[in-house]
Amino acid sequence: MINLYPDGGETGGPKRIEILDTTLRDGAQGEGINFSPHDKIAVVYALDELGVAWIEAGSPGSNPKDADFFLAAKGLSLENSKLCAFGPTRKPDSSPEKDPQIRSLLEAGTEAVTIFGKSWNFHVREVLRVSPEENLAMIFETVAYFKSRGKSVFFDAEHFFDGWKESPDYAIAAVNAASQAGADRIVLCDTNGGSFPGDISAAVAAALAAPWNVRLGIHAHNDAGLAIANTLAAVQSGCLHVQGTVVGFGERCGNTSLASLIPSLELKLGYTCLPEGKLRRISEITRRIAETANVPIPATMPYVGSSAFSHKGGMHSDGVLKTPKSFEHVNPVSVGNDRRLLMSEVGGRSAIADRMRSIDPSITREHPAVNILAEKLKSLEAAGWAFEGAVASFDLLVRRELGRYKSLFRILAYRVMSEHPTGESIACSHAWVKVWVDGQDEIAAAEGNGPVHALDGALRRALVRFYPELEHVRLTDYKVRVIDGGAATAAKVRVLIESTDGPRVWTTVGVSEDIIDASRSALVDSIECKLIGDIERNSGPKNGRRPEASRP
Amino acid sequence: MINLYPDGGETGGPKRIEILDTTLRDGAQGEGINFSPHDKIAVVYALDELGVAWIEAGSPGSNPKDADFFLAAKGLSLENSKLCAFGPTRKPDSSPEKDPQIRSLLEAGTEAVTIFGKSWNFHVREVLRVSPEENLAMIFETVAYFKSRGKSVFFDAEHFFDGWKESPDYAIAAVNAASQAGADRIVLCDTNGGSFPGDISAAVAAALAAPWNVRLGIHAHNDAGLAIANTLAAVQSGCLHVQGTVVGFGERCGNTSLASLIPSLELKLGYTCLPEGKLRRISEITRRIAETANVPIPATMPYVGSSAFSHKGGMHSDGVLKTPKSFEHVNPVSVGNDRRLLMSEVGGRSAIADRMRSIDPSITREHPAVNILAEKLKSLEAAGWAFEGAVASFDLLVRRELGRYKSLFRILAYRVMSEHPTGESIACSHAWVKVWVDGQDEIAAAEGNGPVHALDGALRRALVRFYPELEHVRLTDYKVRVIDGGAATAAKVRVLIESTDGPRVWTTVGVSEDIIDASRSALVDSIECKLIGDIERNSGPKNGRRPEASRP
Repeated sequence: MINLYPDGGETGGPKRIEILDTTLRDGAQGEGINFSPHDKIAVVYALDELGVAWIEAGSPGSNPKDADFFLAAKGLSLENSKLCAFGPTRKPDSSPEKDPQIRSLLEAGTEAVTIFGKSWNFHVREVLRVSPEENLAMIFETVAYFKSRGKSVFFDAEHFFDGWKESPDYAIAAVNAASQAGADRIVLCDTNGGSFPGDISAAVAAALAAPWNVRLGIHAHNDAGLAIANTLAAVQSGCLHVQGTVVGFGERCGNTSLASLIPSLELKLGYTCLPEGKLRRISEITRRIAETANVPIPATMPYVGSSAFSHKGGMHSDGVLKTPKSFEHVNPVSVGNDRRLLMSEVGGRSAIADRMRSIDPSITREHPAVNILAEKLKSLEAAGWAFEGAVASFDLLVRRELGRYKSLFRILAYRVMSEHPTGESIACSHAWVKVWVDGQDEIAAAEGNGPVHALDGALRRALVRFYPELEHVRLTDYKVRVIDGGAATAAKVRVLIESTDGPRVWTTVGVSEDIIDASRSALVDSIECKLIGDIERNSGPKNGRRPEASRP
Repeated sequence: MINLYPDGGETGGPKRIEILDTTLRDGAQGEGINFSPHDKIAVVYALDELGVAWIEAGSPGSNPKDADFFLAAKGLSLENSKLCAFGPTRKPDSSPEKDPQIRSLLEAGTEAVTIFGKSWNFHVREVLRVSPEENLAMIFETVAYFKSRGKSVFFDAEHFFDGWKESPDYAIAAVNAASQAGADRIVLCDTNGGSFPGDISAAVAAALAAPWNVRLGIHAHNDAGLAIANTLAAVQSGCLHVQGTVVGFGERCGNTSLASLIPSLELKLGYTCLPEGKLRRISEITRRIAETANVPIPATMPYVGSSAFSHKGGMHSDGVLKTPKSFEHVNPVSVGNDRRLLMSEVGGRSAIADRMRSIDPSITREHPAVNILAEKLKSLEAAGWAFEGAVASFDLLVRRELGRYKSLFRILAYRVMSEHPTGESIACSHAWVKVWVDGQDEIAAAEGNGPVHALDGALRRALVRFYPELEHVRLTDYKVRVIDGGAATAAKVRVLIESTDGPRVWTTVGVSEDIIDASRSALVDSIECKLIGDIERNSGPKNGRRPEASRP
């Protein structure tokens, strides 16, 4: 078995915490969280970029889609993270060899498996409905079986803290069974999320006093708003392995939010959880994972939320300008977040200047366009735009401001129709678009699955005569968010479109009360970004940054 | 001076905690939180209904609108709560009598005032820029002045915990100055929100050891996700007064959320915070305050969020039906919330049978329709449908399966157009719809902001001739989710529509590759749900559950 803690805390090396993210398993059990296979791959890559040690990616035994995912995932090349699969102990009165769920777990082909079993005798009696002895045998045999097949085994002791309160001996017996069978980690779970930090510390201390030699982990839920506090209490009491989900997705009130926990562990308590330099990317990656789930992170989310370093009170803004420590508990840069002084034009200038340098490397924070763009950003954001996930659209704004923008085409007119029923020869949605390019007109029509698909097809058909390189552009993602739900179908919508031409990936944004018009705006930005980028690359030497980090 | 603790903890009576809500003061400093004068009155009444002891309603000295509010508020008759006004210590090198902010505070005419002053010498030096002695004089003289004018005085010791860490003697000296001047409460503030529970306990213990005889309070912020844990630690260390905001609104990451804290104090730790019976209203009142601020509470909010007692995983649903304690840390009824078993492929047959009983109470888990629906759910979810947030659409599936469904109308044809440019007399999007009702046709047209808005308008215009009750139906939310981003604009979309007719709120879902068609499907479900529900209610006695928990 590999040593997962080459310089683990107990050897006297730096205090290391092993992070397991379960966004794709426990997170997916959160209300409203659904990941497509494409989303799952995106989340795995994001977590790998963040550098968590383990990615618990699904329950192949209970969900055929998860089983398919693990098969597909064998081809992924990850830099920092390893996948593990999740499943239960064997069925009562059976054997691991015969249990189809256990077979699926093996077939997932991961280096590690997480096995969950019961450690609260109330649950054994009332829910599982087996004898206390049979439950211990289920734990022991399942763990031993996976060990005999060469797996690393993480044993999730479900309801450990509730069990420990009610009958400590049985809770300890359950984890002891896993330990004796060779489990590599014993993860103490506050499954119902109602424990207090004092209970956690006491139970972890009791578990550490038991006669085994295995690393303890913690898995907390937020039902009393204490998931982060409970996880910290467990770590401070000796747990070395932490489970959670980056955003905090999970059953009911969610799991421990790793993005709100890890900065405290690394910046304030001297632990190491992520590879060096990764903490500064945690805001960006957290937002990206949330975006993938199409669930916005709360603005007030600790460390990574957009309001986490926003100052509205006049005295606070003033104090923070005199000395940041006066109203900020950590430097926002350390977690890749930004200070924002609301109602003030100094917010975000450094970030803007930084991005502008990808178009003109000579730009400094004092360049007059920086201020103008900061103002423009503010009024656009007030109108519902968001450029955080749509850097390519922001780059077009920058180009316009710097006089480095050339209009390469215009849409003179379009019409999109959706109808029902339709004749046999035409799809439900169809569109025509008339464009103007350098003095010439072109009109083209297309049909599609839905009005936006039809519009996209017609627009690119009309343009490809002038710009054959558009033949290689594909849209790879399309997201819609209603900005002000209160106004229902008359609300504004924000459309994000991700495009690729093979080596490059870029994202653009459009906002309108009309979803067609918002899509049109994002499509136009996408095409302009492609054409302008090609022109600049071909005319050398201004070889700026790629529009956005592209995926290997 | 009134005794605010007639049966306070230290007299041997029940453990009572005095709650001060600062939604209208610190809460209003949160990003995106703005209360109109009308909103403020609504919040005051809501807090009074909940029964908090004190409502900190504004800073009359720094905000003229707050001053006006306090004048207007003199006419309010409150049952449980009292108002207090918030302001700073006197200006440096001045006297309280001459300070206009202090005058405004007196003019507010509240029984109590909250005075904030500095207890971190770093802040005294770098932000306030006065001598340490002058700051102590500012605290002493200001508190003494308000006491001489007959006020109850709560002294907010700003940055107490950061100050105590850096120079404990000065922090204690600052609160001692307030105490010697007669302050009724000394409220220890974690203004920057970065402290850990252990620090809080240690500092509260030190403050309690100091030679004064005054009740201590706690005011925490959530910058490290620990506001609730820190407040609990302070209470368990001896603080008897707790400040926070019901929803958790406040600067940056917010203040302690009282709605997520009070249930733990009352249900688990044996404290009394609210008048008897009020805890059961906390979910409703929290949602109402959030609604007033036009900020939805997070679904995952502990105790009061709509997902706080939602179960999606099959084993969880199954366990909770066997015995609620298995996956619920408290009874949802105790905080006025509801258990919900989410209709999803991972949710299992128990959840389906439970929901079916709202249409036919005789249904058991063994009814053949349960299995058929479980299979249908699985295949619909594989095709992109999701019913966990759209119970009304699921109910229609159930009705079809049980033969309790009657088609009340059909869409014979529709056409939706979006075009650009348009004539002056017509909006960018317009639609016509032809419907069939009981042998008769009707056609109607409407224009709108976007194609879905136009379709919605036309459909309801066509139907209202037959079903005038549709006049009262409004759409209150509209959500779009692209299901498989990989296929971009040809991807499937899922549309969720929330509707209301006043007393009732229900949500329906539609899925299609065409956003228009998906919206059409969800709109049709919404209207059918309304019409069928009305018919059943009018024909008694089959008075099932309301489609979904309705808003008050």
